[in-house]
Amino acid sequence: MTTAANDALVLDTAAQDLLFREARTANTFTDEPVTDEQIQAIYELVKYAPTAFNQQPLRVVLVRTPEGRERLVQHMADGNKAKTSAAPLVAILAADNEFHHELPTQLPSFPQAKDMFFSERPARESSALFNGALQAGYFIVGVRAAGLAAGPMTGYNAEGINKEFFGDGEHSVLAVVNIGKPGENAWYPRSPRLAYDEVVTTV
Amino acid sequence: MTTAANDALVLDTAAQDLLFREARTANTFTDEPVTDEQIQAIYELVKYAPTAFNQQPLRVVLVRTPEGRERLVQHMADGNKAKTSAAPLVAILAADNEFHHELPTQLPSFPQAKDMFFSERPARESSALFNGALQAGYFIVGVRAAGLAAGPMTGYNAEGINKEFFGDGEHSVLAVVNIGKPGENAWYPRSPRLAYDEVVTTV
Repeated sequence: MTTAANDALVLDTAAQDLLFREARTANTFTDEPVTDEQIQAIYELVKYAPTAFNQQPLRVVLVRTPEGRERLVQHMADGNKAKTSAAPLVAILAADNEFHHELPTQLPSFPQAKDMFFSERPARESSALFNGALQAGYFIVGVRAAGLAAGPMTGYNAEGINKEFFGDGEHSVLAVVNIGKPGENAWYPRSPRLAYDEVVTTV
Repeated sequence: MTTAANDALVLDTAAQDLLFREARTANTFTDEPVTDEQIQAIYELVKYAPTAFNQQPLRVVLVRTPEGRERLVQHMADGNKAKTSAAPLVAILAADNEFHHELPTQLPSFPQAKDMFFSERPARESSALFNGALQAGYFIVGVRAAGLAAGPMTGYNAEGINKEFFGDGEHSVLAVVNIGKPGENAWYPRSPRLAYDEVVTTV
């Protein structure tokens, strides 16, 4: 699929296509493995994108063993089980609700933020959810930057995944992402997008 | 600042630098205006990034008038007032909690999703928050793709902004983003990032 390039942008057209215009949510994948080196390359790039107070609450669990895959798939919605079983790699994205332990080292210019803003769990949870979701967005862009397709899903039993993989009660699953090279019939037809005037207003 | 390029990625090095490695949260800006054409170019690119059920809950209010700027700045935290007053353009990013009205046209393959999953406001709110935050992440990347610096902020009275700009009770502010070309002393020193092994685990 080719559409017009966007000349008002500085980002080159090939990068625009790779990250946004031609990238699609894949539903099937080839057997080609996704390596730890690729995931690390993605992380080392997208880690620089901003979060509030530099809190970086995103945590990633790579599901590599057959046992791990079984533990995950049982909690997926029926419509997501087959593709979650078949993808070369599956990543569980979660928010660390106890991110404040790292704040003094991660925000050396303002270490008192930990106690000023994040002494209560509800404040941490809502901040970790928002900033973890921001970082999930960056991560999806990063998967595409590695020439891979992402298949993000939110259809699962969240409580089940949290208990299964985060028994400490400190983490909340945000999304599960299939990762790999797109396979046969990987794409559904692209759905429409809201028009600019439906999304952007001016005051 | 130059650091090593990331060879395991397909995205070219210049694009890696533009979007992530050399991009920074700006705290001062030049007077150069940010045009509607630039914002539309950003939107027309990042609109393609995925959301659950293609729900696209992000809404953007561009604050262009002096009156609008005053109405916004009064609700910002003291430490954010000066830069929010001075930025060439400020965008309020919000989640539309009533996004389900658009679902039948935006997800033509599964129009019944509207009633199956989103008939209750709490379900819509949590979905709009997560997916709106994902889209806020894409939007920040898009601002950088336009060669502009973003200064995202969450330090404000959210209830005040919601009442001031979204009197319908249907929208929830997600972030306020200063946008422009970086000015003098625009950057604080870059804070550290968590190491790969602190973020990514394998099962």
